[in-house]
Amino acid sequence: MLEALKQKVYEANMLLPRYGLVTFTWGNVSAIDEERKYFVIKPSGVEYEKLRPEDMVVMDLEGNRVEGRLNPSSDTPTHLELYKAFPEIGGVVHTHSSYATSWAQAGRSIPCYGTTHADYIYGEVPCLRCLTKEEIDEAYEANTGHLIVNEFKKMNKEIMAVPAVLCKNHGPFAWGKDAADAVHNAVVLEEVAKMAYRAELINPEIEPAPQELQDKHYYRKHGANAYYGQQ
Amino acid sequence: MLEALKQKVYEANMLLPRYGLVTFTWGNVSAIDEERKYFVIKPSGVEYEKLRPEDMVVMDLEGNRVEGRLNPSSDTPTHLELYKAFPEIGGVVHTHSSYATSWAQAGRSIPCYGTTHADYIYGEVPCLRCLTKEEIDEAYEANTGHLIVNEFKKMNKEIMAVPAVLCKNHGPFAWGKDAADAVHNAVVLEEVAKMAYRAELINPEIEPAPQELQDKHYYRKHGANAYYGQQ
Amino acid sequence: MLEALKQKVYEANMLLPRYGLVTFTWGNVSAIDEERKYFVIKPSGVEYEKLRPEDMVVMDLEGNRVEGRLNPSSDTPTHLELYKAFPEIGGVVHTHSSYATSWAQAGRSIPCYGTTHADYIYGEVPCLRCLTKEEIDEAYEANTGHLIVNEFKKMNKEIMAVPAVLCKNHGPFAWGKDAADAVHNAVVLEEVAKMAYRAELINPEIEPAPQELQDKHYYRKHGANAYYGQQ
Amino acid sequence: MLEALKQKVYEANMLLPRYGLVTFTWGNVSAIDEERKYFVIKPSGVEYEKLRPEDMVVMDLEGNRVEGRLNPSSDTPTHLELYKAFPEIGGVVHTHSSYATSWAQAGRSIPCYGTTHADYIYGEVPCLRCLTKEEIDEAYEANTGHLIVNEFKKMNKEIMAVPAVLCKNHGPFAWGKDAADAVHNAVVLEEVAKMAYRAELINPEIEPAPQELQDKHYYRKHGANAYYGQQ
Repeated sequence: MLEALKQKVYEANMLLPRYGLVTFTWGNVSAIDEERKYFVIKPSGVEYEKLRPEDMVVMDLEGNRVEGRLNPSSDTPTHLELYKAFPEIGGVVHTHSSYATSWAQAGRSIPCYGTTHADYIYGEVPCLRCLTKEEIDEAYEANTGHLIVNEFKKMNKEIMAVPAVLCKNHGPFAWGKDAADAVHNAVVLEEVAKMAYRAELINPEIEPAPQELQDKHYYRKHGANAYYGQQ
Repeated sequence: MLEALKQKVYEANMLLPRYGLVTFTWGNVSAIDEERKYFVIKPSGVEYEKLRPEDMVVMDLEGNRVEGRLNPSSDTPTHLELYKAFPEIGGVVHTHSSYATSWAQAGRSIPCYGTTHADYIYGEVPCLRCLTKEEIDEAYEANTGHLIVNEFKKMNKEIMAVPAVLCKNHGPFAWGKDAADAVHNAVVLEEVAKMAYRAELINPEIEPAPQELQDKHYYRKHGANAYYGQQ
Repeated sequence: MLEALKQKVYEANMLLPRYGLVTFTWGNVSAIDEERKYFVIKPSGVEYEKLRPEDMVVMDLEGNRVEGRLNPSSDTPTHLELYKAFPEIGGVVHTHSSYATSWAQAGRSIPCYGTTHADYIYGEVPCLRCLTKEEIDEAYEANTGHLIVNEFKKMNKEIMAVPAVLCKNHGPFAWGKDAADAVHNAVVLEEVAKMAYRAELINPEIEPAPQELQDKHYYRKHGANAYYGQQ
Repeated sequence: MLEALKQKVYEANMLLPRYGLVTFTWGNVSAIDEERKYFVIKPSGVEYEKLRPEDMVVMDLEGNRVEGRLNPSSDTPTHLELYKAFPEIGGVVHTHSSYATSWAQAGRSIPCYGTTHADYIYGEVPCLRCLTKEEIDEAYEANTGHLIVNEFKKMNKEIMAVPAVLCKNHGPFAWGKDAADAVHNAVVLEEVAKMAYRAELINPEIEPAPQELQDKHYYRKHGANAYYGQQ
């Protein structure tokens, strides 16, 4: 079932090593079916070199494996919560990409210092709190998803305008309209995290980019008045 | 029309991923016809892997597309202003290369700390102010060009002696006598930005290179008394 | 003798340049026979490009070369002490990998700042003191091994839960259940060292990850209740 | 003439891009004939991709080009002074390698923070002063050589025990017993410069490695009692 989606999720997973976002098996991509009944995700702990499209695991939205011999990624419950809460999300990716994870370890949100960031992400990339011991013990991965969902709602952030988040002391999740778009955003996040890190070292008194410049770049690429690209 | 120039601009654009100056479609190179009637530029938002020489767009100096099916780079009006103001400029390049963009995000000019810089760029690489809300709203890309032109004139900088600039919270533009030379200068800028960043972290009390050393290296490669290379 | 083990040790050594952990000949991997009578190690100072499986040197646990034309790695006595003291160790690796060595040169243990670290290493990676002049003069490499053994016992660290150490002003050693596993841990160490370095520069007030999060990730992958991967 | 030496110098030059030590044409390697009558050096400003063994230029020790159609590297007089002053030097290399040049721009000598450094270089890599305006005007490249020679003599440094130097606001020179050995030392210098930079950021209170550890590693690889490798 869902062979075309499995192929796309496989290909999106294979982009992670190609873009240098993963070491070993430290990452996973999923995507949801158009009818939003099932989603397809990488199996847990399988090396990218050995991964095949038919290894992808099909899950339903109750968290049951409905097809696939292998265990799904241990982060599957986090992906699941994102799909349930946000109908705009078509694909989700988790990595330990080096610069974004360093910000997560530092426990800091990434300010919007420039147009590279503003072209894709509206405002800062938030770094969320750690889960409590109770949340960890009860259901670590699902509660990671709940935290993302709740914090985005509390912050009134539009989920597709801020397509990435940092989980403190852990690493980034990113999402998009499909699996490839989610990986695209994960690459952007890593680049943005790298340049923000360096910019702060170059100028410790640095300030975020002016709001009007952020708006200009975001809306040059998004929404009704976009004029970037060939649309 | 201008098939030879399209080929050169195509090749110069393809140097950007080769030298690691771009992620995705974040960069564009143009070059102007010898008669300075038309210039050729990369289409907007097209992936480098799919780019072909015939995709290049031909523009006139009033900003009209005179040939090409695709939209030109969204930064086209900036290129245009540089060609109109400076007859010495034959090629222009814009990237979000990582170190140069970090300096732009930090809002700092890059001091001349050594001979690598002085071999190509006379004095600091200036970081210009952000556009005002009015300038952004009126004509963002054209006004970016106007700002570069006006600031270089105000600073009394010879345009070919300082073949690069940083736009605050945005990124670098570089130029040269043709498309390949512009890319060459963009590579130099990135290398210079990287070493200046590290040099400041190694020695927070760092000073620019002595003027006589800067002069020696710049004039060893430029002008009537140059003796570097095979000329 | 031990042809299969030589092949594995050869392959594990060849992973070092592939993962970017070595420059020139600055690294060595060994593995011990199942009966723990002999171990196989890279010859000293041989370039990776010229290395062949049959060049591997067989040593006994008294430090005698029992097979091989070439001198064993100069660090052989350190490997030997680790095998003698810890029956759980099946493979040992030494490198001068860039980030881990920078922490060793800085004389600092690497705190556990996140789950990438906690997935593999329980608590900080300790940086041990330098050897005294007497220890160096008497038997530098063997005493390096003694120091690791003694300090791990003194710190009450379980050797397989902390599969890496930094020797001050020198560099890292890592180990695992076999040669490939030891190299795997050396790669993890380098990645962890890189992200800890950057995280501290992003946030000088950084704190280690909460203990409950470290526990969750470590035990998600290790021990009776592990559920990561396909086991 | 000197075809074998030209081939070796050509190959050593081609190692510079392979080891990532040069951008464009920013580097040059030379080697001297066994009889120390002639030396062979890269031509000035020729791209590595187009370089051929027969392009190498033969110079005598008075600085005359005795064979070759192309101009020798503009740094030729610096190489010449090193060959004249130190009969132990068989090959010389100059690069703008990124980390070493950053230290040169920072105007700081590289302290010996660990065994990677001590394995090859005895004590710090000195950063020399800038030339005066008079020295620059009179004979920039030759006076760079004189400065290195005079400062090494003044510091009582054995030239082969400290096979590299930083010229302030410029970059590194390295040398060795032949062209390949000089490049080897240039690679070591870059690696050492990189790790020293990071180690200082990890620990601003860092101290050089204890002298006895430096001695141990240096003499483990050099002199009558060396036991590293297969000698």
